[in-house]
Amino acid sequence: MKITKLKNISDLILDFLVKKKVKKIFLITGGSIAFTIDSFSKRKDISYICVQHEQAAAMMADAYSRVGPNFSATMSTSGPGGTNLITGIGCSYFDSIPALHIVGQVNVNEQRGVMRGTKNSRQIGFQETDIVSISKPLTKLSIQLKNEKDILYILEKLFYISQKGRQGPVLLDLPMNFQRLPVPKNLKKFNPPKLKHMKINYKNIVDLFKGSKRPVILSGGGVRYSAGVKEFNSLIKLLKIPIVTSWSGVDTISYSNKNYIGHVGVYGSRSGNFTIQNADLILSLGSRLDTRITGGKPSTFARNAKLIMVDIDKGELEKRRGFTPFKEIKVDVLIFLKNFKNELLKNKNYKSLGRKTWLDTCKDWKIKYPTFDSSFGKDKKFVNPYKFTDVLSNKLNNKEIIIPDDGAHLTWFMQAFKVKLGQRVFSAFGNSPMGYSFPASIGASIALNKKRVICIDGDGSFQMNIQELQTVVNEKVPIKIFILNNNGYGIIKQFQEIYLDKRFEATGKGVSVPNYEKIANAYNIKYYSIRNDKEIDNKLDKILSDKSANIINVFVHPTQKIIPKIAFGSPIEDMSPKLSKSELKNNMMISIIGADKNLLESN
Amino acid sequence: MKITKLKNISDLILDFLVKKKVKKIFLITGGSIAFTIDSFSKRKDISYICVQHEQAAAMMADAYSRVGPNFSATMSTSGPGGTNLITGIGCSYFDSIPALHIVGQVNVNEQRGVMRGTKNSRQIGFQETDIVSISKPLTKLSIQLKNEKDILYILEKLFYISQKGRQGPVLLDLPMNFQRLPVPKNLKKFNPPKLKHMKINYKNIVDLFKGSKRPVILSGGGVRYSAGVKEFNSLIKLLKIPIVTSWSGVDTISYSNKNYIGHVGVYGSRSGNFTIQNADLILSLGSRLDTRITGGKPSTFARNAKLIMVDIDKGELEKRRGFTPFKEIKVDVLIFLKNFKNELLKNKNYKSLGRKTWLDTCKDWKIKYPTFDSSFGKDKKFVNPYKFTDVLSNKLNNKEIIIPDDGAHLTWFMQAFKVKLGQRVFSAFGNSPMGYSFPASIGASIALNKKRVICIDGDGSFQMNIQELQTVVNEKVPIKIFILNNNGYGIIKQFQEIYLDKRFEATGKGVSVPNYEKIANAYNIKYYSIRNDKEIDNKLDKILSDKSANIINVFVHPTQKIIPKIAFGSPIEDMSPKLSKSELKNNMMISIIGADKNLLESN
Repeated sequence: MKITKLKNISDLILDFLVKKKVKKIFLITGGSIAFTIDSFSKRKDISYICVQHEQAAAMMADAYSRVGPNFSATMSTSGPGGTNLITGIGCSYFDSIPALHIVGQVNVNEQRGVMRGTKNSRQIGFQETDIVSISKPLTKLSIQLKNEKDILYILEKLFYISQKGRQGPVLLDLPMNFQRLPVPKNLKKFNPPKLKHMKINYKNIVDLFKGSKRPVILSGGGVRYSAGVKEFNSLIKLLKIPIVTSWSGVDTISYSNKNYIGHVGVYGSRSGNFTIQNADLILSLGSRLDTRITGGKPSTFARNAKLIMVDIDKGELEKRRGFTPFKEIKVDVLIFLKNFKNELLKNKNYKSLGRKTWLDTCKDWKIKYPTFDSSFGKDKKFVNPYKFTDVLSNKLNNKEIIIPDDGAHLTWFMQAFKVKLGQRVFSAFGNSPMGYSFPASIGASIALNKKRVICIDGDGSFQMNIQELQTVVNEKVPIKIFILNNNGYGIIKQFQEIYLDKRFEATGKGVSVPNYEKIANAYNIKYYSIRNDKEIDNKLDKILSDKSANIINVFVHPTQKIIPKIAFGSPIEDMSPKLSKSELKNNMMISIIGADKNLLESN
Repeated sequence: MKITKLKNISDLILDFLVKKKVKKIFLITGGSIAFTIDSFSKRKDISYICVQHEQAAAMMADAYSRVGPNFSATMSTSGPGGTNLITGIGCSYFDSIPALHIVGQVNVNEQRGVMRGTKNSRQIGFQETDIVSISKPLTKLSIQLKNEKDILYILEKLFYISQKGRQGPVLLDLPMNFQRLPVPKNLKKFNPPKLKHMKINYKNIVDLFKGSKRPVILSGGGVRYSAGVKEFNSLIKLLKIPIVTSWSGVDTISYSNKNYIGHVGVYGSRSGNFTIQNADLILSLGSRLDTRITGGKPSTFARNAKLIMVDIDKGELEKRRGFTPFKEIKVDVLIFLKNFKNELLKNKNYKSLGRKTWLDTCKDWKIKYPTFDSSFGKDKKFVNPYKFTDVLSNKLNNKEIIIPDDGAHLTWFMQAFKVKLGQRVFSAFGNSPMGYSFPASIGASIALNKKRVICIDGDGSFQMNIQELQTVVNEKVPIKIFILNNNGYGIIKQFQEIYLDKRFEATGKGVSVPNYEKIANAYNIKYYSIRNDKEIDNKLDKILSDKSANIINVFVHPTQKIIPKIAFGSPIEDMSPKLSKSELKNNMMISIIGADKNLLESN
């Protein structure tokens, strides 16, 4: 092989990625990226995974970044190669995941607007597409390289921006003509700007806790994204304060932690919701407190609590959609945790913060209102997904990666799964596309030297990236693909049942599901089925002792519900199926009821 | 079933689509579009196809529009439902295909920027995504409904814009809160603006033809898009002028038409290229004359010809990328054809336009340089794709729809296929994504009452929408899926062979292909294979007499080349494999050579 010795721009890009600890790039080749991909032929310190659809590449990169070096990359060709990434980029954007997407572009001299009169043409170069504008709403920065001297500057800037403040994806639009140019001598350098930190009075915050009767700490995604999980767990050991989580914060604490009560929100747990709704002080750590947490009427969220909102993103602190933080603290969660702990330890009596009776009340709710209870799990014809999840979580060790997808099966899973600290449990919660979990499981496995990953998928969702079965085969990644198969789009079916008189348009009607056993066979992937609750335990033992990739068809009742959930407009303590008026009233502290008397009386 | 009698906004949308002759909507349901989809339950004059991925829905709609009512629609949910459409929307945009994409959106009061301080948040409502900005670069108009009184105005405006001038896709961003509102009484109406037509001196144009020795007519996509195919064929019957086509114009004329010479460009035919390169007058009808037609050095395109460029899109007429039209005529091609013919018929001697000797010379090239010649088709181990295409085209009738995909197999197919007038032969030529032809074949079949469609796919490309096999099964559409299987990305392999010393990164290396036989079995779709040239004839007879959908694995040599093609920077008469200097010289009229002596001498 004749290989050019001179280092070119593409070689420099690979150097940069190696420096950022990215070892595998997810890609599909194409005319306008082939030169850059050719650079892999010169080296062994970085290589690539050929995927089947660029959408999956972006989702793999998202998960690779999450469980790996907090950075990742894709490469794709111009036009459709770039536009195919968009949904995956959206996953990273809404969930604050750093990743770099390198999209080939036509030569600069073939671009719209370069030659005279070409500005109003739809396309000049072959597959020319304005990926910078298209991706801009879903990236922190999308930029085209215009001068080879800027390549290092732009790469370092993109990296810096992806990591700085609230993290997120970035995109480099890379015209062909630069890809083979020798690296110029006078490369422009990037000097990160000096950041000003907000001055925070931690003593004030500790004082608020001192004055609180019913404090609660809400752990959100920011605890994880700031690399603050260890510090968070070290902090809460010192306190007798109930902890609740958002979905994004669910793997920041062990389910069995003595202070952990549950997660909160529309699809949360009754215990978590009673806890946060009764709080008089909430310390929210890196949660954006979106509608799925506050309920559709945010004014009913944590009505009498003082809310201390810690977030690195000013945009999240500023928003006023029915509740107003008592304190908005713009800071990295890890920095907050360290300083807050230091301040706490200055107080001799820090151990008395929080009140044992309050914590005990919350713990009682956790026991009284389990998601999975003994009334489930007796169906002889189908698998109850809550029971399935409960059993599965008992069998997984504390290093496992578990990635659920979206819709009904995400909800069942999140409600019933009991996290062990050390596990990673995440989905693309903000974008919530169908089809994330399967490619994400591949990406996570690749990041961790082909470690086993538990993929929890739905029958509708799995269709979205089914083509990546070939990548599983090609790369031999031991993914366990559990398909919670309820023959259609469960969460919409439940919506139609409640609001549309059971007219199952495009969910029950017009939809069908492939034969997964035959599909598994087609790819030489071992297939299992779990047909009813009785089978769960044994089958899971078999599957988890199988070292290879599997497709597991888990037969769920076609009208299986999400239980409990919040009906449109109800405050989050009032989950359906509804408790009796008196039970609800008993669980709410009198002082809070006041304004909401009507609610209780209308139940 | 309890059904609301009152007509709501969603019902009005379906009324509108029925009025525009759209009978099937391609869709996937989801939270923010479920109300609109519910409207289908009330009626039988319009229904839907449930697809597996929204990308495919957009491509199906594109093809539905092409072979059906010149309009079509998709429906999808907010966030990923919308972003998944983007690549398919790009297909319609670059190829000027009208289609309406209706994307659900979160309620207006849950949108960024509506409540105080929410402007800088990444997302307020669940799955809220700024689809208007994201899709804008690839649509003629993307707009959000802000007031229910505007619904009809916006729909009619979107339709008008999709059809007016150069056609293209449009997008409606439809917040949930409007979807169930009763239709208000005082709906705003849309009045299309009055258009000014350019005054065209058709006599001048006829005079140019009178003065020309070597006139050529180039038929582009605009002939088809303006519904001008019949008029075009009626015109050329009157003339003794050689006709060449672009790829988009390939099905506007029969291959066997006595005046047809071939198609032109980088992957064109030698005969077509000699014809256009020797012309002294070119009438270009609705072709944008892009790089794939002019070659990489447009200054060498049709050097001595006067170019009359007819196009409805000012943006295409204005561009100056190395050649300058002698006349730019901004008009609908159909209108041009009618007026030009009228003007022509005023001349008694119109039959003498063009010269028989010139036409004969061009015809001789067509005979002397066939794409498929007897040197092909003797491989005992693989199928020659040129031979395959040649035989296939002999067997198809003049009503067939044939949809090739992209890359190498598109090129082989386009070079060797002999169109019969009445057939439809198209791909998404401008966007050229991998994976268009398969969903497009489904969409075309649906538009024509489940007619048979011939899908010509590649092994790399088929992966991109393989999930739609379930739609084939569900809808029972008799698609013939020919996979020209060369085990990797052929067009890039050829590029790597020529320019990258055969380093097959991410084409030969790192890529694998599924077992199509097993996949066909998994979906209960009948599988065929064609393993070598000898099998082509018999197997095609069997396949074409089979009434159901099939997957046909056509084994092509992994390094099968595209022959002939233009090397980087060569003028389009000088295709590789190169002819001898003297043969090339003999085929070029001396008067044109002049400036390009160097070219001939360097060969």
